Amino acid sequence: MKGFGFEIKKTDSSARLGRVTTLHGTFTTPVFMPVGTKASVKGMTPSELKSIGVEVILANTYHLYLRPGHELVRELGGLHRFMGWDGPVLTDSGGFQVFSLCKLRKITEEGVQFSSHIDGTRYTLTPESAVGIQEALGADIIMPLDECTPYPADREYTVESMNLTHRWAGRCKEAKVPNGQALFGIVQGGMYPDLRKESAATLVDMGFDGYAIGGLSVGEEKGLMKEMALSALKHLPADRPRYLMGVGTPEDLVFGVGVGIDMFDCVMPTRNARNGTLFTRRGKLVIKNAQYEKDPRPIEEDCGCHTCRNFSRAYLRHLFMAGEMLAPRLNTMHNLFYYTRLMLEMREAIGQGRFEEFRKRFHADRSVPEQMAAL
Amino acid sequence: MKGFGFEIKKTDSSARLGRVTTLHGTFTTPVFMPVGTKASVKGMTPSELKSIGVEVILANTYHLYLRPGHELVRELGGLHRFMGWDGPVLTDSGGFQVFSLCKLRKITEEGVQFSSHIDGTRYTLTPESAVGIQEALGADIIMPLDECTPYPADREYTVESMNLTHRWAGRCKEAKVPNGQALFGIVQGGMYPDLRKESAATLVDMGFDGYAIGGLSVGEEKGLMKEMALSALKHLPADRPRYLMGVGTPEDLVFGVGVGIDMFDCVMPTRNARNGTLFTRRGKLVIKNAQYEKDPRPIEEDCGCHTCRNFSRAYLRHLFMAGEMLAPRLNTMHNLFYYTRLMLEMREAIGQGRFEEFRKRFHADRSVPEQMAAL
Repeated sequence: MKGFGFEIKKTDSSARLGRVTTLHGTFTTPVFMPVGTKASVKGMTPSELKSIGVEVILANTYHLYLRPGHELVRELGGLHRFMGWDGPVLTDSGGFQVFSLCKLRKITEEGVQFSSHIDGTRYTLTPESAVGIQEALGADIIMPLDECTPYPADREYTVESMNLTHRWAGRCKEAKVPNGQALFGIVQGGMYPDLRKESAATLVDMGFDGYAIGGLSVGEEKGLMKEMALSALKHLPADRPRYLMGVGTPEDLVFGVGVGIDMFDCVMPTRNARNGTLFTRRGKLVIKNAQYEKDPRPIEEDCGCHTCRNFSRAYLRHLFMAGEMLAPRLNTMHNLFYYTRLMLEMREAIGQGRFEEFRKRFHADRSVPEQMAAL
Repeated sequence: MKGFGFEIKKTDSSARLGRVTTLHGTFTTPVFMPVGTKASVKGMTPSELKSIGVEVILANTYHLYLRPGHELVRELGGLHRFMGWDGPVLTDSGGFQVFSLCKLRKITEEGVQFSSHIDGTRYTLTPESAVGIQEALGADIIMPLDECTPYPADREYTVESMNLTHRWAGRCKEAKVPNGQALFGIVQGGMYPDLRKESAATLVDMGFDGYAIGGLSVGEEKGLMKEMALSALKHLPADRPRYLMGVGTPEDLVFGVGVGIDMFDCVMPTRNARNGTLFTRRGKLVIKNAQYEKDPRPIEEDCGCHTCRNFSRAYLRHLFMAGEMLAPRLNTMHNLFYYTRLMLEMREAIGQGRFEEFRKRFHADRSVPEQMAAL
């Protein structure tokens, strides 16, 4: 497919160092994609994202479909020009948001009807319209409409849901204009390893530019999440990018990279930042805690982000307690820098064949609760 | 006074081009000081303020006294280090906030008792403590505690209020440590020209590093504001900076500069930005208006700010309607750039002896409502 490509440069056990090529440039993998739900990574300008090393972002079809509308975005030159971001963009299909945000949704063979969470207006999203909307937005990587199987779900429901997702995936592929925008498949199958295998195999038979593992991090235990991811992974081709959707914590990313995931997205760094929870090598730091009231140190002593280079924990705590807009902004800057640096360190480790060493060090750093307490 | 100085480089009729020297560097006048109420110009980093040409900012003693407390700021190295701003800072005395934000305030000869607007705690601010707090904050320019005479107020009340302000000014001067931090006087006198004259003359007799005109833009008509400012100005020495407090609109700034004001502050550019009202040479633009829904142009075609260089009105409207954090941020960036550019243009005009020409052009630009409608 012209415009989209994936190249593996180095492997280290199951971990892979690669490069994805899109219509809007390349990104190195494994990669974390910050979430820009409504065509904005909350509080960050595109040039700031670039400055901390972000190469690809995710936007939400569901939100943009409702407001400002994909036709308006198309008219204004597509998502890239609209939001001033000239790098790769992946859009999800909107399926996940319909299932998590909307009441009164009705799933049929045709698609899903739902009421907008903004004003209650009824909409219908079909596999064809989901692809059409993402084509209008001008996404570099398009996700097919799927049903994110709820958790828990019994086997019967999960099988039906998975099969619907497969039929919708086929219709998305059919509807897709061959214009260089990539189309991924999404593996479902709930918490059943054999269904995860079946879903992966079915989608691979259909043939997609990349494969996502969906329906995880939906409330299940970490062990189950990992088992399901592995069940799907085993049946995905090595030469296509693998994307673990909506995952996750720093620990999850280290796990995922270790087992061969290439792409991740999650609202965690940006949402936690707004709530005042900051990531460090030693674990999370809750900035509102009284212990930081007079703390002149940066969030992390050795962090190179704008926030850590310029501001103390005491100042960040003050901003947070005072409800200042600068608080979520500076916190977001740090958390995204942390995530971006974590991915960079993992890519470097894979490139040098020492990912396992990195993984051990990563866990050792955060297993020192007494140090964390002294922070 | 060591550490503080004022030099006039050029005059053009009543307008003055000058330079103020402080313990933290210099700024050129006439100048507009963005308001950083709680040690943060809302949504902006210090480096962004620098990048748009801001040379001096204002912070609020009242807010910082309540939270995080001046002793904490002192312990962390003063306001400059605390907020990461190494340029000049002016702090107001807190008097205005006590009178505008606090209920249950009680004015006595000693000072003012009030209940915190945050949690109702009782505090007392005296001329001596207001100076001490600002010394602890490390402000470059300190304002004395004054009573901002309410509007309207009868002559009797205004005289009493003014005399109290004068006595407090004397106590502030007495309390002030001679450490290079400057202390200004604040002219009151309500809406009575002869009291404005008396107040100016009294303060000048006492001798301050600069003179502020307070108690204006409190609800009175523009004509009255201008008359009062002029009444005070006539009696202020030419060789000291003159500061028109809490003013104002772009029109007010052009008026003020024309009559010889050197310093201004106002929340208007930052607050309006958050409300989606943007300043342009032709007047205000309300970004939520439907006419901008698909408008691919920047806020102002010839504006060099980060917002105008990168984003369309359509995108800014989308961000505003979607409640995205980036909206107030990008809007603030533009409005502060507008205010800073306006001051720069006025300084250039004075330097070239064509301020009157500038003033006419300024008003001509905004007297074309049909063009504004076509925007």
